[in-house]
Amino acid sequence: MTRDVALGGNALDRRGEPITAAVQRRNVELAAEALAPLLDSDEPLVITHGNGPQVGLLMLESEADTAVGAYPLDVLGAETEGMIGYMLEQALIRRSPHARFATLLTQTVVSAVDPAMRKPTKPVGPVYDTVTAHRLAEQRGFSIAPDTGGWRRVVPSPEPIRILEQDAVRVLLDNGTTVITAGGGGVPVVIDDQGRPMGIEGVVDKDLTAVVLALAVGADSLLLLTDVDGVYRDFSGPRPEKIEHLSARTARSLIAGGAVGRGSMGPKLEAAARFADRGGTAVIAALDQMAGALAGLSGTTVAPDGSHSIFDLERYRTAGAR
Amino acid sequence: MTRDVALGGNALDRRGEPITAAVQRRNVELAAEALAPLLDSDEPLVITHGNGPQVGLLMLESEADTAVGAYPLDVLGAETEGMIGYMLEQALIRRSPHARFATLLTQTVVSAVDPAMRKPTKPVGPVYDTVTAHRLAEQRGFSIAPDTGGWRRVVPSPEPIRILEQDAVRVLLDNGTTVITAGGGGVPVVIDDQGRPMGIEGVVDKDLTAVVLALAVGADSLLLLTDVDGVYRDFSGPRPEKIEHLSARTARSLIAGGAVGRGSMGPKLEAAARFADRGGTAVIAALDQMAGALAGLSGTTVAPDGSHSIFDLERYRTAGAR
Repeated sequence: MTRDVALGGNALDRRGEPITAAVQRRNVELAAEALAPLLDSDEPLVITHGNGPQVGLLMLESEADTAVGAYPLDVLGAETEGMIGYMLEQALIRRSPHARFATLLTQTVVSAVDPAMRKPTKPVGPVYDTVTAHRLAEQRGFSIAPDTGGWRRVVPSPEPIRILEQDAVRVLLDNGTTVITAGGGGVPVVIDDQGRPMGIEGVVDKDLTAVVLALAVGADSLLLLTDVDGVYRDFSGPRPEKIEHLSARTARSLIAGGAVGRGSMGPKLEAAARFADRGGTAVIAALDQMAGALAGLSGTTVAPDGSHSIFDLERYRTAGAR
Repeated sequence: MTRDVALGGNALDRRGEPITAAVQRRNVELAAEALAPLLDSDEPLVITHGNGPQVGLLMLESEADTAVGAYPLDVLGAETEGMIGYMLEQALIRRSPHARFATLLTQTVVSAVDPAMRKPTKPVGPVYDTVTAHRLAEQRGFSIAPDTGGWRRVVPSPEPIRILEQDAVRVLLDNGTTVITAGGGGVPVVIDDQGRPMGIEGVVDKDLTAVVLALAVGADSLLLLTDVDGVYRDFSGPRPEKIEHLSARTARSLIAGGAVGRGSMGPKLEAAARFADRGGTAVIAALDQMAGALAGLSGTTVAPDGSHSIFDLERYRTAGAR
C-alpha cells in the first residue's frame, strides 16, 4: 500500500528563473503544499525528484573554480541529493511536523555494457558558445551536441537496473517513514566483477529510476508529477487532446507512433507503461492540480492491460479529504 | 551493541592540500581501509564525519557565483552531507560489497535561545583579507573574527539537542545497516512552537552531535577518530605525555584545567566525557592507528567513573581478527 511519488524537475523549478536559494525554497514549499493530501494519509510515500537545474548550477560553479578544479558529475549529483533532499524534507516536516521523514542518498546500478554508454545523448549543465564547447570537448573529453542557442555537454543515460540502497528504503517505509530518495535518478554506478561500485559521469532518467524503486519496495501506485496536467495526443499541434486513461499497451503504441511528441512526456509515459506492465497503476499529472488528479478529474492514468479500475479513486479521495 | 564512529574532519583531509575530487577520493579510501576491521564484524556502525574543508569549498564557489548569488550555510552543509556521504559510502561498499550501507541526511535540533546563538565563535569558509571581510560583514551581515593570515566568517555553534532523523537511523541499524549520518554535525535547525524546523547559519560540533546520536541509538561505544593518536597532557609543551585511560571525572578536570590545550582535542575530550557520563566507553584515537587502538595499544579511553574495564578489548580484538 505504498505510493511512489516522482516529482519532475519541472515540478520543482520554473524554467528560465535563476535558481537562487530563495527560488528553490519557494518551489519546494509549493511542492510540499501540493503533496499535503498524500502526507495526511497514513501511508508512507517514496518521493523522488529531478535535479537538472541544480546539477547545472553546481557544475557551473565547480568549473569556475580553477584553483581546485571541476568535480565529476557523480559527486555533483550526490551534492544535489543533499541540497534538494534537505530543502524538501524540511518543507515537508513544516507541513506535517508529526510525520516521519528521511532523505536517503541513492546510487543506481547501471550496466557498463548498456548501449547508451557509448552514445551520450542527455544534455547536462549550461549552454556553451561554440569555442568554449569545443575547448571543453578537447581538454576534458566532454561529448558535446548542439542545443538551443549553443552547445551543451551530453552524457550517457543508461537504464536503471536496481538501487543499491533499496533495502534501506523498504525498511524505512515499513517503519512508516516517508523517504525522499533517488534524486536526479540516483547517482549512476557500474559494478565490477567483485561487486564494487564506481560512479560514472552519466544521468539516469529519474522517472525510470522511480519505477525500479516503486517495484523494489512493492508500491501499488506511482504518481508522476510535472508541470503538464497529463498526456496529450498531438500536444504541440493545432488540436491537442487530453487522454484520461490508457492501458499499458495503448501507452506503448502512442510512444511508438510518436503521438505524444518529444520532450519530457515520452520518458514519463514510458515509465508509466513499465509500471503498468508489472501490475501497478501510474498517474501522470500536474503538481499544482494534484487534488484534481486524486479525485479523478485531472491527469492521465495508465493501468495494466485488461484492468477495469481506472484508479483506486476511493482510497485517494478518502486520503485527500482527511 | 552498536558502535558509533566519528571521523574527524582531519581524518578525512590533510591540512593545506587543495580539496580536489581526487584528493577527497583518496582520503576517503584510506578512511574506508582503516575502518575495515570494524566493518568485518557483524555489528552495524553509525559513522559520522566532519565537513569543514568541504563546506569551505562550496561556500567559496557559491559566493563567486554572482549571477545566482551565494547559498546559505544550511543548504551548503546539506550538500556536503551528500558529497561526503556518497564518496564514503561508495568506498565502504568497495571494501565490503556484501554489507549494508545507507547515507542519511541529518538535521540537528538546537535551541533558539542557546547562549551560543548570540556569540558566533566558529570560523567557517575561507580566510579573507581585511577589506573583503569587512565588506561581507556589512553587505551580508556576517560576523567576522581575526584568524591566521586575515579574517574569517564566524557563526554560532550551539549545543545539539536531538537529531530529527534519529528514529530512521535506529531502524536502519536494527536492520543491520551501517549508517553514514550527521555529517558536519548535521544541519542545525531550530524548531518553532508549532514543531516546524528552520535551518540556521551555524555549525554544530560534530563530536557532540555524535554523542547525541550514539545515546539515541543505544550505542555502547564511541570511537572518535582524528589525526592524533590520543589525548596528551601538555600537548604543545616540551614534554607531552600521552594518556591511556581516563575516567569521565578526570577528563573533565583536564578540560577545566586547560591541560589538553586548545584546538580540536578539547571538544573531542568533552564529547568522550559526556558519553562516559551516560555509561558508555569512548576512545579517542588516530584513524591510521585504529588497529592498535582496537588492540588497546593506542588511543585514549574515557570510561564511566568507577569503571574498571578500560575497554571491551576482547570483543574488538575478535572483531578485528576476523
